[in-house]
Amino acid sequence: MSFNTFGRILRFTSWGESHGVSMGCILDGIPPRISLSTEDLQREVERRRSGLSRFTSQRKEPDQVQILSGVFEGRTTGAPVALQILNVDAKSKDYAEIARLYRPGHADYATQQKYGVRDWRGGGRASARETVMRVAAGAIAKKILGKKVVVRAAVSQIGPLAVHDEQWDWTHGTPETLFCPDREMLPRWQALLDQARKDGTSLGGRIEAQARGVPAGWGAPLYAKLDADLAAALMGINAVKGVEVGAGFAVVSRDGRQNADEMAVAEKHTDNNAVNFLANNAGGILGGISTGQEIRLSLAVKPTSSVRLPLRTVGADDKGEVKEGMIETKGRHDPCIAIRAVPVVEAMIALVLADHQLLHRAQCG
Amino acid sequence: MSFNTFGRILRFTSWGESHGVSMGCILDGIPPRISLSTEDLQREVERRRSGLSRFTSQRKEPDQVQILSGVFEGRTTGAPVALQILNVDAKSKDYAEIARLYRPGHADYATQQKYGVRDWRGGGRASARETVMRVAAGAIAKKILGKKVVVRAAVSQIGPLAVHDEQWDWTHGTPETLFCPDREMLPRWQALLDQARKDGTSLGGRIEAQARGVPAGWGAPLYAKLDADLAAALMGINAVKGVEVGAGFAVVSRDGRQNADEMAVAEKHTDNNAVNFLANNAGGILGGISTGQEIRLSLAVKPTSSVRLPLRTVGADDKGEVKEGMIETKGRHDPCIAIRAVPVVEAMIALVLADHQLLHRAQCG
Amino acid sequence: MSFNTFGRILRFTSWGESHGVSMGCILDGIPPRISLSTEDLQREVERRRSGLSRFTSQRKEPDQVQILSGVFEGRTTGAPVALQILNVDAKSKDYAEIARLYRPGHADYATQQKYGVRDWRGGGRASARETVMRVAAGAIAKKILGKKVVVRAAVSQIGPLAVHDEQWDWTHGTPETLFCPDREMLPRWQALLDQARKDGTSLGGRIEAQARGVPAGWGAPLYAKLDADLAAALMGINAVKGVEVGAGFAVVSRDGRQNADEMAVAEKHTDNNAVNFLANNAGGILGGISTGQEIRLSLAVKPTSSVRLPLRTVGADDKGEVKEGMIETKGRHDPCIAIRAVPVVEAMIALVLADHQLLHRAQCG
Amino acid sequence: MSFNTFGRILRFTSWGESHGVSMGCILDGIPPRISLSTEDLQREVERRRSGLSRFTSQRKEPDQVQILSGVFEGRTTGAPVALQILNVDAKSKDYAEIARLYRPGHADYATQQKYGVRDWRGGGRASARETVMRVAAGAIAKKILGKKVVVRAAVSQIGPLAVHDEQWDWTHGTPETLFCPDREMLPRWQALLDQARKDGTSLGGRIEAQARGVPAGWGAPLYAKLDADLAAALMGINAVKGVEVGAGFAVVSRDGRQNADEMAVAEKHTDNNAVNFLANNAGGILGGISTGQEIRLSLAVKPTSSVRLPLRTVGADDKGEVKEGMIETKGRHDPCIAIRAVPVVEAMIALVLADHQLLHRAQCG
Repeated sequence: MSFNTFGRILRFTSWGESHGVSMGCILDGIPPRISLSTEDLQREVERRRSGLSRFTSQRKEPDQVQILSGVFEGRTTGAPVALQILNVDAKSKDYAEIARLYRPGHADYATQQKYGVRDWRGGGRASARETVMRVAAGAIAKKILGKKVVVRAAVSQIGPLAVHDEQWDWTHGTPETLFCPDREMLPRWQALLDQARKDGTSLGGRIEAQARGVPAGWGAPLYAKLDADLAAALMGINAVKGVEVGAGFAVVSRDGRQNADEMAVAEKHTDNNAVNFLANNAGGILGGISTGQEIRLSLAVKPTSSVRLPLRTVGADDKGEVKEGMIETKGRHDPCIAIRAVPVVEAMIALVLADHQLLHRAQCG
Repeated sequence: MSFNTFGRILRFTSWGESHGVSMGCILDGIPPRISLSTEDLQREVERRRSGLSRFTSQRKEPDQVQILSGVFEGRTTGAPVALQILNVDAKSKDYAEIARLYRPGHADYATQQKYGVRDWRGGGRASARETVMRVAAGAIAKKILGKKVVVRAAVSQIGPLAVHDEQWDWTHGTPETLFCPDREMLPRWQALLDQARKDGTSLGGRIEAQARGVPAGWGAPLYAKLDADLAAALMGINAVKGVEVGAGFAVVSRDGRQNADEMAVAEKHTDNNAVNFLANNAGGILGGISTGQEIRLSLAVKPTSSVRLPLRTVGADDKGEVKEGMIETKGRHDPCIAIRAVPVVEAMIALVLADHQLLHRAQCG
Repeated sequence: MSFNTFGRILRFTSWGESHGVSMGCILDGIPPRISLSTEDLQREVERRRSGLSRFTSQRKEPDQVQILSGVFEGRTTGAPVALQILNVDAKSKDYAEIARLYRPGHADYATQQKYGVRDWRGGGRASARETVMRVAAGAIAKKILGKKVVVRAAVSQIGPLAVHDEQWDWTHGTPETLFCPDREMLPRWQALLDQARKDGTSLGGRIEAQARGVPAGWGAPLYAKLDADLAAALMGINAVKGVEVGAGFAVVSRDGRQNADEMAVAEKHTDNNAVNFLANNAGGILGGISTGQEIRLSLAVKPTSSVRLPLRTVGADDKGEVKEGMIETKGRHDPCIAIRAVPVVEAMIALVLADHQLLHRAQCG
Repeated sequence: MSFNTFGRILRFTSWGESHGVSMGCILDGIPPRISLSTEDLQREVERRRSGLSRFTSQRKEPDQVQILSGVFEGRTTGAPVALQILNVDAKSKDYAEIARLYRPGHADYATQQKYGVRDWRGGGRASARETVMRVAAGAIAKKILGKKVVVRAAVSQIGPLAVHDEQWDWTHGTPETLFCPDREMLPRWQALLDQARKDGTSLGGRIEAQARGVPAGWGAPLYAKLDADLAAALMGINAVKGVEVGAGFAVVSRDGRQNADEMAVAEKHTDNNAVNFLANNAGGILGGISTGQEIRLSLAVKPTSSVRLPLRTVGADDKGEVKEGMIETKGRHDPCIAIRAVPVVEAMIALVLADHQLLHRAQCG
């Protein structure tokens, strides 16, 4: 079923197809009297915009966010905030072939099977372009969270090349540097991506994210677990195939002693915590509830499914008969979509956290 | 916030603490006229029961499921089905120490920070005992799905020892064999677990699951994506720290050509599909919608946090002052909880799939 | 569709059929550390119990409420509270005729058309017995609301006989006095009900309810309007056919001047309000949001559909053929169900208000 | 809390303030492959537009509906449909006084108390202008319901003047005739409204609505009762103070025999029903489920709160001090808002019914 709403108290609902009139969303449940301007949103949207490095799609979208409602004299009113970005540089002709053939790795075939119809222009609703509204809404979520909570993400691996932890420098991760936190790794990734593009293929990537400053107590013991909600939010980003919390899959080969996050009395009490965890294998969440430690997440992004190399596929002719064919993607695509997913990851985490902040307040005051 | 409901149309809501009166749940939205008996439920619950091998907790719970409502003359009526299992063998004394000290890796500390109170007896609401109701409800979900859809899971790794794919035999995976699908691996796992128990520690594990027979078209393009809902369901199981769909984290180091699931015309049309996928890296889901291929999932389960070895921790004395202490878990625990999680994994997958079957029917008829 | 949950943050989900094992509910989202005992619940349930006057059904149910979860050492823990009442005095034989014939005015026919099956014993899920759990849950809602908010209801009319406003005395309304707030009206109602019973018929009634002490600001401008949520809650009580807020249907023949609730500065500022409304035609709610005034509601309850007089109806024989028949209800029924609906009305109002208290806190802190 | 979504499967979420950029909505859960054009929507929106008779507000809004998403080649795709109408004729100056004084009977005061801020221009979010999107979405709901289900409403009373049932002629009810179904009553209403306007006041009204062709079986026994959902939908329309189903408040003074809807075998079996109800006091809904009879609803609309006559009220000065004042509404207002509410009533009923059609299909196939 179509179900385009995300969140419990802070509810995000989006609309729009890649080559339709506009992309838009409604964010509902926003606390009143939060200062909010177009600039607050535009800043985040810019980080996701294509064309910031030569390794992102060359689609030229100005991506000007418009606030349609919910803000009065520079502050939120408690009413739903609707946001809109017009689609400008939509070249549906690039996609004419999709009308006839299902692109492997894309939603084309599944969508057609589900609905018996699909808006094939630019991938329609399944296009990663939809994520622009998540980024805009995420900017509002960050304002709700306030300055104490910092959410950030970076690319930690592209293809076989992982960054070195000891080189990790958050300040180095910008759209221009492919969100790479390892200064020395950057040129190697650039070479790798150049080669992939030349070969007509694409590369997978890994993203690491963290949220600092989340107090102990957000989340729920069951079914609104903070980790489960984060997992859904991240797995719901286009092309994501795996999600880890804390030590993630590394726990499989560990024993209980190694994986224990022992606790001590904190030398200096912070407002979050009177205790000091001696490790953070849990990734800041135990029993579905935040512990006051840093929340740590990791996710796997598959290589862009659209490649220039010809792939074997099927389609339906005018009479609905299934037939085989070869498809070569000629549209404008990112050689590694993990890069542009970084601001989306941050936005989704911020939306989940802000929702849980409000949920916690609802029950526990 | 407390939010003990799971699902959109088929909604599961549970109650109960480990050492409370009973564990129970309400499953709402069940289609009418489905035959349902206590035996249908008991069969699944038995697979999860402790004490079936010497490598599970020795807590002796008869786990007799009682149907309290929603069934008349052996068939569902469309009314909510409430299920209950009485807690019989609750030894709260084993847990007295938890009243004073937070167990590392458990929800004790986070729960206390959230609610300012906690039912410490046996872990209260955070106990894995709650999963017994998911298994019972999952048995109903399997009946809704019908015989065409087969959901199954197995343990594929314990500690460092992974099963060999070429040895995989689904029929070998039972509670008595630790849900191990590799006949030759079983004795090695048994030795490993014996040693862990002797050492006073515990081991992590990996579970692989699949759902066969799901037709193309279940799920949604966004925010009720089938993979996102499955990720939340699995990450929401106690001790799970990572979830993969299809190739999972392996996609990170792949290129787009390798990861493509090419398509051909099916030689023999099945009722699901007129097409034949040449690979299944996607794990049966594209763009949040099932493709008719086998759905493939994998998850990481951390080593049981309760270990006999002493761990450093903190607690609160009667005056609420934080103080340090050492904790050794003496209760009855599983050396590797991945084993008993297998039926829970199946149940959660079945609940998600049955919900999406109904959701798909709602929108698309 | 079956949808047995009510509320947004404070969520009530019930189970149970009139002649099944038990009636029960889960109340989720309850704030932690609220003192709660069986006695708190039993007190309210007693007010609804049958047999307290000779004008209610003679079904003898002890209605002992059992708390199954969510309370530890006398206080709520934030976990879901499950409640259960066993069905003891279920005489399914009284209802054997319903298995063959649809009772006019009851849910029998519609249920059968919807589900193709029905638990006909005592009306199954559609029995007013389900409301006992609303009353029990309402008792918890009242504890959440605290002592400042007082919710109360009374019967204001039975058949043609309405109480006189100038005689209104809230203290006179108890189960034993048919919740009649007019001491002089009571004997006239008793005579009327005696006659109705003798005549083998039943009588309609009107209930007035109010909530005092609700601060200004609960509710929402749209779609979670306090009046809309209250209307749904009250229209959802068995046999209710009309709901009014404030002046209700009287507004139809008024002009805007008459209906205005003018405002003045309050002489004595209360914690709710710095203003003083000069009238309360709005019934304490404007634009879906409470104004701090008394919330006033009124509802119409139809005469009990089960009457001893024979009624013309249809049914289905063993082969599913529709056939006509006459039905005379011989079971134990209330001559005027408005009477026993009073505690249910209070409970539903309390549940809605407590939910909105938490919702308001979620968004506005 | 702000909660701007309505519906369970077919979910309507709206945005927009009276004098903001635009009014808009997202309708989610629409079945695919339904033909849909701007004209389909515009036709319904026109019926609600002001200025169609001299008895509606003279605000001149062209109200051109724009489809922003979810439609491809003239058919719905299953994706969310976003609709937008730009605000053109917004004269905020007319409302400058509202910035300082709370209008009696309006949401001004309650909104300010809730949020501590309000968009006072034209009433902001609380303006009846928001209902234009409900009408547009209702047009889609009617397409989902198909031609077998007919939803219609009319004004049955203005002030003291009620139409005569024997004169009832549905074809006579258009925006130009004030949705009056009684040809002879129309001139009397016109005179009454002229006088009210001259007197600087306004009038209440009553609306009757019906839905024909709804099959037996839509709705739910509890908490998604069809009547409860309809009550919430109608009570949620601006200025509505009472809702009745079927005989409504008339049941109070009836006995059970009078109020019985006896049944007989239908002479001619229709596809809905093999039975023939001999009366319809229930208004087509029993136990929360449709019976296949005509659904009958009635509602009370208060007189427009904005009147030209001066009313006593309070406001806050620049320093937040509460002070008294007199307010005279000079904006463009309807002397009887019941008239323009008619298409909104139809839309809300259609939205509820279409949602229940899908919900029923989800559970019962």
